[in-house]
Amino acid sequence: MQSLLLDFYGELLTEKQRECCELHFNEDLSLTEIAEQCGISRQGVWDNIRRAEAALEEIEEKTGLIRRFSETQKSLEKLDSQLEALRRLSPGAESEALIRQMRQEIRSLRTRG
Amino acid sequence: MQSLLLDFYGELLTEKQRECCELHFNEDLSLTEIAEQCGISRQGVWDNIRRAEAALEEIEEKTGLIRRFSETQKSLEKLDSQLEALRRLSPGAESEALIRQMRQEIRSLRTRG
Repeated sequence: MQSLLLDFYGELLTEKQRECCELHFNEDLSLTEIAEQCGISRQGVWDNIRRAEAALEEIEEKTGLIRRFSETQKSLEKLDSQLEALRRLSPGAESEALIRQMRQEIRSLRTRG
Repeated sequence: MQSLLLDFYGELLTEKQRECCELHFNEDLSLTEIAEQCGISRQGVWDNIRRAEAALEEIEEKTGLIRRFSETQKSLEKLDSQLEALRRLSPGAESEALIRQMRQEIRSLRTRG
Protein backbone atom coordinates (compact mmCIF):
# COMPACT_ATOMS: atom_id res chain seq x y z
CA MET A 1 0.00 0.00 0.00
CA GLN A 2 1.22 3.50 -0.83
CA SER A 3 2.06 5.04 2.55
CA LEU A 4 0.55 8.42 1.61
CA LEU A 5 -2.85 6.71 1.44
CA LEU A 6 -2.76 5.92 5.16
CA ASP A 7 -1.24 9.29 5.98
CA PHE A 8 -3.89 11.26 4.09
CA TYR A 9 -7.04 9.25 4.60
CA GLY A 10 -6.28 6.75 7.39
CA GLU A 11 -8.60 8.54 9.80
CA LEU A 12 -11.53 7.83 7.48
CA LEU A 13 -11.17 4.04 7.95
CA THR A 14 -12.92 2.09 10.68
CA GLU A 15 -10.85 1.82 13.83
CA LYS A 16 -10.15 -1.87 13.23
CA GLN A 17 -9.13 -1.31 9.61
CA ARG A 18 -6.77 1.49 10.57
CA GLU A 19 -5.27 -0.55 13.41
CA CYS A 20 -4.60 -3.55 11.14
CA CYS A 21 -3.07 -1.35 8.43
CA GLU A 22 -0.84 0.58 10.80
CA LEU A 23 0.48 -2.58 12.44
CA HIS A 24 1.04 -4.21 9.04
CA PHE A 25 2.53 -1.33 7.07
CA ASN A 26 4.00 1.03 9.67
CA GLU A 27 5.01 -1.43 12.42
CA ASP A 28 5.78 -4.23 9.95
CA LEU A 29 4.04 -6.92 12.04
CA SER A 30 3.01 -10.25 10.48
CA LEU A 31 -0.65 -11.19 10.02
CA THR A 32 -0.39 -13.69 12.91
CA GLU A 33 1.12 -11.08 15.22
CA ILE A 34 -1.61 -8.59 14.32
CA ALA A 35 -4.30 -11.26 14.83
CA GLU A 36 -3.00 -11.92 18.35
CA GLN A 37 -2.72 -8.24 19.17
CA CYS A 38 -6.21 -7.37 17.88
CA GLY A 39 -7.95 -10.51 19.10
CA ILE A 40 -9.32 -11.45 15.66
CA SER A 41 -8.50 -14.26 13.19
CA ARG A 42 -5.64 -14.07 10.69
CA GLN A 43 -8.24 -14.07 7.93
CA GLY A 44 -10.06 -11.25 9.70
CA VAL A 45 -6.86 -9.19 9.74
CA TRP A 46 -6.34 -9.80 6.04
CA ASP A 47 -9.94 -8.87 5.20
CA ASN A 48 -9.58 -5.62 7.13
CA ILE A 49 -6.38 -4.74 5.30
CA ARG A 50 -7.80 -5.52 1.86
CA ARG A 51 -11.01 -3.62 2.50
CA ALA A 52 -9.06 -0.69 3.92
CA GLU A 53 -6.79 -0.52 0.89
CA ALA A 54 -9.76 -0.63 -1.49
CA ALA A 55 -11.52 2.13 0.50
CA LEU A 56 -8.42 4.35 0.52
CA GLU A 57 -7.81 3.85 -3.18
CA GLU A 58 -11.41 4.74 -3.94
CA ILE A 59 -11.14 7.95 -1.90
CA GLU A 60 -7.99 8.95 -3.78
CA GLU A 61 -9.57 8.08 -7.10
CA LYS A 62 -12.52 10.34 -6.26
CA THR A 63 -10.68 13.28 -4.70
CA GLY A 64 -7.21 13.16 -6.35
CA LEU A 65 -5.77 14.97 -3.32
CA ILE A 66 -2.59 12.88 -3.14
CA ARG A 67 -1.97 13.39 -6.84
CA ARG A 68 -2.40 17.13 -6.32
CA PHE A 69 -0.12 17.03 -3.27
CA SER A 70 2.59 15.13 -5.19
CA GLU A 71 2.52 17.67 -8.01
CA THR A 72 2.94 20.47 -5.45
CA GLN A 73 5.88 18.61 -3.92
CA LYS A 74 7.53 18.34 -7.35
CA SER A 75 7.07 22.08 -7.94
CA LEU A 76 8.57 22.85 -4.52
CA GLU A 77 11.59 20.71 -5.33
CA LYS A 78 12.03 22.63 -8.55
CA LEU A 79 11.64 25.99 -6.76
CA ASP A 80 14.30 24.92 -4.31
CA SER A 81 16.86 24.21 -7.04
CA GLN A 82 15.96 27.46 -8.76
CA LEU A 83 16.65 29.29 -5.49
CA GLU A 84 20.03 27.56 -5.31
CA ALA A 85 20.77 28.80 -8.85
CA LEU A 86 19.61 32.28 -7.87
CA ARG A 87 21.86 32.22 -4.81
CA ARG A 88 24.84 31.66 -7.08
CA LEU A 89 23.76 34.59 -9.27
CA SER A 90 23.10 37.10 -6.45
CA PRO A 91 26.06 37.23 -4.10
CA GLY A 92 24.87 40.10 -1.86
CA ALA A 93 24.41 39.44 1.86
CA GLU A 94 20.81 40.64 1.84
CA SER A 95 19.85 38.36 -1.07
CA GLU A 96 21.69 35.50 0.57
CA ALA A 97 19.72 35.91 3.82
CA LEU A 98 16.41 36.15 1.99
CA ILE A 99 17.15 33.06 -0.09
CA ARG A 100 18.13 31.14 3.03
CA GLN A 101 14.77 32.03 4.64
CA MET A 102 12.87 31.01 1.55
CA ARG A 103 14.62 27.67 1.30
CA GLN A 104 13.81 27.00 4.95
CA GLU A 105 10.15 27.73 4.26
CA ILE A 106 10.20 25.41 1.24
CA ARG A 107 11.90 22.71 3.27
CA SER A 108 9.18 22.91 5.91
CA LEU A 109 6.52 22.59 3.17
CA ARG A 110 8.32 19.57 1.77
CA THR A 111 8.43 17.71 5.06
CA ARG A 112 4.95 18.61 6.28
CA GLY A 113 3.55 15.86 3.99
CA MET B 1 -20.63 26.05 3.70
CA GLN B 2 -16.95 26.68 3.10
CA SER B 3 -16.48 26.21 -0.66
CA LEU B 4 -13.21 24.32 -0.22
CA LEU B 5 -15.17 21.54 1.51
CA LEU B 6 -17.11 20.80 -1.67
CA ASP B 7 -14.04 21.25 -3.82
CA PHE B 8 -11.91 18.86 -1.79
CA TYR B 9 -14.35 16.21 -0.69
CA GLY B 10 -17.50 16.71 -2.77
CA GLU B 11 -16.91 13.48 -4.69
CA LEU B 12 -17.19 11.53 -1.43
CA LEU B 13 -20.84 12.56 -0.95
CA THR B 14 -23.79 10.61 -2.32
CA GLU B 15 -24.80 11.76 -5.79
CA LYS B 16 -27.99 13.39 -4.48
CA GLN B 17 -26.16 15.21 -1.67
CA ARG B 18 -23.55 16.53 -4.07
CA GLU B 19 -26.18 17.62 -6.59
CA CYS B 20 -28.18 19.52 -3.93
CA CYS B 21 -25.04 21.22 -2.58
CA GLU B 22 -23.74 22.23 -5.99
CA LEU B 23 -27.07 23.71 -7.03
CA HIS B 24 -27.41 25.51 -3.70
CA PHE B 25 -23.88 26.83 -3.19
CA ASN B 26 -22.34 26.98 -6.67
CA GLU B 27 -25.41 27.72 -8.82
CA ASP B 28 -27.14 29.71 -6.06
CA LEU B 29 -30.57 28.12 -6.67
CA SER B 30 -33.29 28.31 -4.02
CA LEU B 31 -34.49 25.23 -2.15
CA THR B 32 -37.72 25.23 -4.18
CA GLU B 33 -35.86 25.43 -7.48
CA ILE B 34 -33.57 22.56 -6.43
CA ALA B 35 -36.56 20.51 -5.26
CA GLU B 36 -38.16 20.90 -8.70
CA GLN B 37 -34.96 20.13 -10.54
CA CYS B 38 -34.18 17.02 -8.46
CA GLY B 39 -37.73 15.77 -8.14
CA ILE B 40 -37.65 15.62 -4.34
CA SER B 41 -39.36 17.68 -1.61
CA ARG B 42 -38.02 20.99 -0.35
CA GLN B 43 -37.44 19.33 3.02
CA GLY B 44 -35.59 16.51 1.25
CA VAL B 45 -33.29 19.03 -0.40
CA TRP B 46 -32.58 20.69 2.93
CA ASP B 47 -31.90 17.32 4.63
CA ASN B 48 -29.43 16.40 1.89
CA ILE B 49 -27.60 19.71 2.26
CA ARG B 50 -27.40 19.50 6.05
CA ARG B 51 -26.24 15.89 6.01
CA ALA B 52 -23.71 16.69 3.30
CA GLU B 53 -22.27 19.59 5.25
CA ALA B 54 -21.98 17.48 8.39
CA ALA B 55 -20.26 14.69 6.43
CA LEU B 56 -17.80 17.09 4.78
CA GLU B 57 -16.97 18.78 8.08
CA GLU B 58 -16.37 15.42 9.69
CA ILE B 59 -13.98 14.41 6.90
CA GLU B 60 -12.03 17.65 7.30
CA GLU B 61 -11.96 17.26 11.06
CA LYS B 62 -10.49 13.79 10.64
CA THR B 63 -8.01 14.43 7.84
CA GLY B 64 -7.15 18.15 8.24
CA LEU B 65 -6.25 18.29 4.53
CA ILE B 66 -7.87 21.67 3.89
CA ARG B 67 -6.12 23.16 6.90
CA ARG B 68 -2.84 21.80 5.56
CA PHE B 69 -3.63 23.12 2.09
CA SER B 70 -4.45 26.60 3.47
CA GLU B 71 -1.16 26.73 5.34
CA THR B 72 0.69 25.82 2.15
CA GLN B 73 -1.17 28.57 0.31
CA LYS B 74 -0.11 31.09 2.94
CA SER B 75 3.52 30.02 2.61
CA LEU B 76 3.33 30.32 -1.17
CA GLU B 77 1.96 33.84 -0.86
CA LYS B 78 4.87 34.71 1.42
CA LEU B 79 7.38 33.11 -0.98
CA ASP B 80 5.92 35.18 -3.78
CA SER B 81 6.46 38.48 -1.95
CA GLN B 82 9.96 37.38 -0.98
CA LEU B 83 10.69 36.74 -4.66
CA GLU B 84 9.45 40.22 -5.45
CA ALA B 85 11.85 41.61 -2.82
CA LEU B 86 14.64 39.49 -4.27
CA ARG B 87 13.91 40.79 -7.76
CA ARG B 88 14.50 44.31 -6.52
CA LEU B 89 17.81 43.23 -4.97
CA SER B 90 19.17 41.29 -7.98
CA PRO B 91 18.91 43.40 -11.09
CA GLY B 92 20.74 41.03 -13.50
CA ALA B 93 18.83 39.77 -16.56
CA GLU B 94 19.52 36.14 -15.71
CA SER B 95 18.17 36.51 -12.15
CA GLU B 96 15.20 38.43 -13.46
CA ALA B 97 14.29 35.63 -15.88
CA LEU B 98 14.67 32.95 -13.21
CA ILE B 99 12.53 34.90 -10.74
CA ARG B 100 9.84 35.38 -13.37
CA GLN B 101 9.75 31.61 -13.98
CA MET B 102 9.53 30.91 -10.27
CA ARG B 103 6.70 33.34 -9.72
CA GLN B 104 4.80 31.76 -12.59
CA GLU B 105 5.24 28.35 -10.96
CA ILE B 106 4.05 29.72 -7.62
CA ARG B 107 1.08 31.36 -9.29
CA SER B 108 0.08 28.05 -10.85
CA LEU B 109 0.32 26.37 -7.41
CA ARG B 110 -1.83 29.10 -5.91
CA THR B 111 -4.63 28.73 -8.42
CA ARG B 112 -4.62 24.92 -8.60
CA GLY B 113 -6.62 24.83 -5.33
